[in-house]
Amino acid sequence: MKLYDAPWAPSPRRVRIYLAEKGIEVERKTIDLRNGEQLSDPYLKINPRGAVPALELDSGEVLNESAAICRYFEALHPEPPLFGSTPLEIGRITSWTRRIEGDGYAAAVYVLRNSVPAFADRAEAGKWPALPQIPELATRGSIMWSAFVDALDERLGESDWVAGDTYSFADITALVTIDFASRAKLPLPDDAANIRRWHEAASARPSAEA
Amino acid sequence: MKLYDAPWAPSPRRVRIYLAEKGIEVERKTIDLRNGEQLSDPYLKINPRGAVPALELDSGEVLNESAAICRYFEALHPEPPLFGSTPLEIGRITSWTRRIEGDGYAAAVYVLRNSVPAFADRAEAGKWPALPQIPELATRGSIMWSAFVDALDERLGESDWVAGDTYSFADITALVTIDFASRAKLPLPDDAANIRRWHEAASARPSAEA
Repeated sequence: MKLYDAPWAPSPRRVRIYLAEKGIEVERKTIDLRNGEQLSDPYLKINPRGAVPALELDSGEVLNESAAICRYFEALHPEPPLFGSTPLEIGRITSWTRRIEGDGYAAAVYVLRNSVPAFADRAEAGKWPALPQIPELATRGSIMWSAFVDALDERLGESDWVAGDTYSFADITALVTIDFASRAKLPLPDDAANIRRWHEAASARPSAEA
Repeated sequence: MKLYDAPWAPSPRRVRIYLAEKGIEVERKTIDLRNGEQLSDPYLKINPRGAVPALELDSGEVLNESAAICRYFEALHPEPPLFGSTPLEIGRITSWTRRIEGDGYAAAVYVLRNSVPAFADRAEAGKWPALPQIPELATRGSIMWSAFVDALDERLGESDWVAGDTYSFADITALVTIDFASRAKLPLPDDAANIRRWHEAASARPSAEA
């Protein structure tokens, strides 16, 4: 199998951190996002959505979506569990993962895609008809980001890791989101002490370098 | 346990259809979204995010996010599997589910939340600071919806159900999305014959009435 990857984008990084935590090695091919290779004809034959990551299986079938690729590997290699073992852990990890995606990651994407000139007419990730940037949506993203950070900081005052006592896919999702947001000029506020404590611990794991 | 529910919103419907397919009965309490009960102090004590559905466990812990609630029940009651059994089924179902959410459902929400007067200053679901509507985002949603419907119709020309030969959580997600979009005045185009065939089959299942 082969993983189509890119070095600075958040979704491929989510898969790389996951694979590093699991100790899984997969052949990778880098797609050059800066030069638009994800929207080139050869890559669109692999993934018509024009997005990375994508996992090409030996059968030729391609799985896309970072969380789907990780869940595929989780089913192949259940240990150590990163999506939970008990029903309650599974529910908590999925709930937090989706909250981080829907509230935090979405906010950062709103800002980045609607303000950075390189994304003019590509205001949503992947292959779409031309979608103009909307400056008001970047403003909305900033408001959402502040509220999200407050909620995540409160949560991380209650538990060591996002979804409980152990590191999980929710932490991977949060780490990727926070680091991506800082590139979108949405840094953490000084008073987010719980996030800072957690961010240091998550970033110290070897997987964070993947 | 108790499920906080609402009769016309898409996310609670996703959970109800899922539970009906699994044959699981759960006590439900209806939250009156039309009168803003989801943002009332008593409900915010249950779910500070101000959204339905939410599942209150007997311990008092509350799980939110429709997909997280369904995965919790899937772990409690694995049969019949709606998130897949083999790694490949799990990957396909998750991938299609996320594509429908990110491309189709998001598009319909862009349109509805940014154009219907009842959502003025509540342009994102849940409890946020005031978020004004952005008419250009409704326009973007319409463009995305058309592209999404084309892609889904193509997919349903290849297989009976969204993620393969059997009905899955991806079909539940698509059904809820298509029906929600039609309420947002994003109906199916006449030439979407594969979606129409699939929609008739999905709607004929008793769970669609849940």
